[in-house]
Amino acid sequence: MSQASLPPAQNDLKTERSRLRRAHERGLYDRATIDAVLAAMPLAQIAYVLDGAPSLLPTLQWREGDYVYWHGSAASRALRAMEGSQVCLSVSCLDGYVLARSAFHHSVNYRSVVLFGEAERVHGAHAEQSYERMFDAWFPGRWQTLRPMTAKEVKATAVMRMPITEGAAKVRTGGPKDDLEDYDLPIWAGVVPISMVLHPALDDEKAPKPLPQPEHLSRIELG
Amino acid sequence: MSQASLPPAQNDLKTERSRLRRAHERGLYDRATIDAVLAAMPLAQIAYVLDGAPSLLPTLQWREGDYVYWHGSAASRALRAMEGSQVCLSVSCLDGYVLARSAFHHSVNYRSVVLFGEAERVHGAHAEQSYERMFDAWFPGRWQTLRPMTAKEVKATAVMRMPITEGAAKVRTGGPKDDLEDYDLPIWAGVVPISMVLHPALDDEKAPKPLPQPEHLSRIELG
Repeated sequence: MSQASLPPAQNDLKTERSRLRRAHERGLYDRATIDAVLAAMPLAQIAYVLDGAPSLLPTLQWREGDYVYWHGSAASRALRAMEGSQVCLSVSCLDGYVLARSAFHHSVNYRSVVLFGEAERVHGAHAEQSYERMFDAWFPGRWQTLRPMTAKEVKATAVMRMPITEGAAKVRTGGPKDDLEDYDLPIWAGVVPISMVLHPALDDEKAPKPLPQPEHLSRIELG
Repeated sequence: MSQASLPPAQNDLKTERSRLRRAHERGLYDRATIDAVLAAMPLAQIAYVLDGAPSLLPTLQWREGDYVYWHGSAASRALRAMEGSQVCLSVSCLDGYVLARSAFHHSVNYRSVVLFGEAERVHGAHAEQSYERMFDAWFPGRWQTLRPMTAKEVKATAVMRMPITEGAAKVRTGGPKDDLEDYDLPIWAGVVPISMVLHPALDDEKAPKPLPQPEHLSRIELG
């Protein structure tokens, strides 16, 4: 058993957390990359602590200025547990498998953001405006075509956010980086690119009569 | 402010955690769905608690029997913090945007697994065998074509796992579910399907001479 496998002492963990925070603060200088990753991938995972143990909520996020937003049922126990507490939000795009000449140097190309901060619930007019921003982020042009939200629907929905103040984006691109002496081995190496693809829209089978697919569908982007 | 937005008391959180665990245990009866989602998407997010606050590690997972595995640098502070502690692992496939007639009923199609459990490090021969299993899961047929791992590489790598004993798979498929009175509105509704796509492999630009792309590349599956 190597020394690295021993459980770290509490002091190590505290030191480690400050180190991570500092590292993430350094990373934050590249705010443009963070914003680009958040815009590319709505799917997010939000970690929170419930009764001392970690829990995860998969959900969709959108950005408004210096905050990342998400929403859910106002009755959601996960959202209630997050409110006023530290959370960690992660967004990842898997962009390719990097196949090297040794097992050890296999890797993935990716774009990833990890943010730390306190979650807060957004209320009133601010929350109602956020629904439109959410649609503008995911389905631009669609909000204006929908029937307005009812008061009951607004009341049933909670909007949450966290500041983009602590965290980092990480990006890997390009081919494998093998040990110098391995390049002459007769082993194929390279990259298998991966992307998320939007397919042609399918009309709702329950529609009482066919309606033309709206132009705004072509404005949805992903990845 | 609705009552649901008030911060829950500590007792509520404990009750909530038991409720979640029970719900997840119920979900576990569908083990086949959990295994299918884990096989479809290597990308995972693992939540752990560091100095009382939630943190997230994006990484790749593979399954061996009743355990989910991941690996990383033996020097990784995240892996050291996880060892012997509760973690929460999540895997999500975003399968489509579900566009309804009202904002409220917009949704996503997805396959998702959330697992809770204690992470442990795997050592010795067990860890070395796991590297081959990892390749069999992600790049079947490739392991046998690589140069063997060196002792130094094995020592530099940590293999971790958690049991698949507590957690649940969730799956949404199909079209929008609108309020009955909304179906006659002149608003297009339907689904924009999403999938992850593997593209043709790119040869390593740094290869000293061209090598044919191996047959095993066609055996990689995703999504």
